[in-house]
Amino acid sequence: MADENNGIKALTFDVFGTVVDWHGSVAREVRALAKAKSLRLNAVKFTEAWRAGYRPSMDKVRSGELPWTKIDVLHRMILDQLLTQFRVADALSEEEKVHLNLVWHRLKPWSDAPRGLKRLKKRYIIATLSNGNTALLVNMAKQADLPWDTVFSSETFRHFKPDPEMYLGAADALDLKPEQVMMVASHKHDLRAAAANGLKTAFIKRPHEYGRNKNPDVASEAEFTYNAEDFLDLAQQMGA
Amino acid sequence: MADENNGIKALTFDVFGTVVDWHGSVAREVRALAKAKSLRLNAVKFTEAWRAGYRPSMDKVRSGELPWTKIDVLHRMILDQLLTQFRVADALSEEEKVHLNLVWHRLKPWSDAPRGLKRLKKRYIIATLSNGNTALLVNMAKQADLPWDTVFSSETFRHFKPDPEMYLGAADALDLKPEQVMMVASHKHDLRAAAANGLKTAFIKRPHEYGRNKNPDVASEAEFTYNAEDFLDLAQQMGA
Repeated sequence: MADENNGIKALTFDVFGTVVDWHGSVAREVRALAKAKSLRLNAVKFTEAWRAGYRPSMDKVRSGELPWTKIDVLHRMILDQLLTQFRVADALSEEEKVHLNLVWHRLKPWSDAPRGLKRLKKRYIIATLSNGNTALLVNMAKQADLPWDTVFSSETFRHFKPDPEMYLGAADALDLKPEQVMMVASHKHDLRAAAANGLKTAFIKRPHEYGRNKNPDVASEAEFTYNAEDFLDLAQQMGA
Repeated sequence: MADENNGIKALTFDVFGTVVDWHGSVAREVRALAKAKSLRLNAVKFTEAWRAGYRPSMDKVRSGELPWTKIDVLHRMILDQLLTQFRVADALSEEEKVHLNLVWHRLKPWSDAPRGLKRLKKRYIIATLSNGNTALLVNMAKQADLPWDTVFSSETFRHFKPDPEMYLGAADALDLKPEQVMMVASHKHDLRAAAANGLKTAFIKRPHEYGRNKNPDVASEAEFTYNAEDFLDLAQQMGA
């Protein structure tokens, strides 16, 4: 059976955007909080600014400008800047800020994700390979019913994607060759970095990752091992 | 609800002996191999010698005599010595040795373990905290139907129990205080090391861990947070 699918034994998943809907989940909570506290706050803009701060803050760690720092802490650093920028910092208690920061632990899955993962799990090892931290991914999995065999995070390897240590670290921890592992993501740059390290690749189309009115690049690419509409389609294509 | 159970949020499990029956599982495979290859080999003695080599070999890593080495490799070092000692080294091919060494990935669970873990998982984070390596624990979980939320191994923290880095590393990775985590084990020394680092403790009685005719110490101890007959009993006591 293994040969039918290029010898793939394990699937490692990007999480934010690929498995869960960060844009919808965060905007919903920010909107509810703004309403409850009577704040003037554009929830979509706030959400997008929070997410936009993510890559630059990870890059500070990757470049050595910051020491190792997990995403929960980076998220909080960005949040504090945004609360000031959006002029609502004084309206929230420390407890409310802590709770809001943990919205990233409470992201909701795309509707196909739990069922698709359960199908894929019957035939393959399924694991996260996310820049999130371990607690975030474990808490999310419990709330979102994501049946991971194990959780690999930036905290596991003390690196962020696209560092090779992430892709190769997952393969090594599973005692597999890179070509026996397939990276699953809705981001082509993540897949290209995985492929550069010898992993197989599956591109998942998430046209609404950035909201309903955005048009991200969801074109299939021949360079990827699979291109799929969602996890159920991927399971179907892989005979799982 | 949390207060009812001392604020415990996560349970970390010792695996060999606590979750799976290493003695019965390894002896069974060794016996079958001996029969298939017509070898004169006492399967029980072989199994016990293999297991007996485990602690000394880990201690060589803990003391710095050996560099970081994962259990699969330590198991193979011990196996090679034993095959020579039992005068069967030449009777097995390299492929057969590799397969035999991976018997530790194929250990069978105690009969209460899968059901008990499923109950506990509904209310708590459940994770391994084992001296095994990650691939071993992931492969075992798939074969034995062990529904871990995540796998913490000696490879995750590059330490072996009873090093504090293991117990404190698991709590830190889960963003919990040590007292919010409970170590679950059938070995009192493991629990005492966990308690020394601030974790709660659950002692599981596994009278047949070392075979049917052995009498390990399974007396309850007031020092442990829980003493349980098996995982179903623990779930019951914890209201899960």
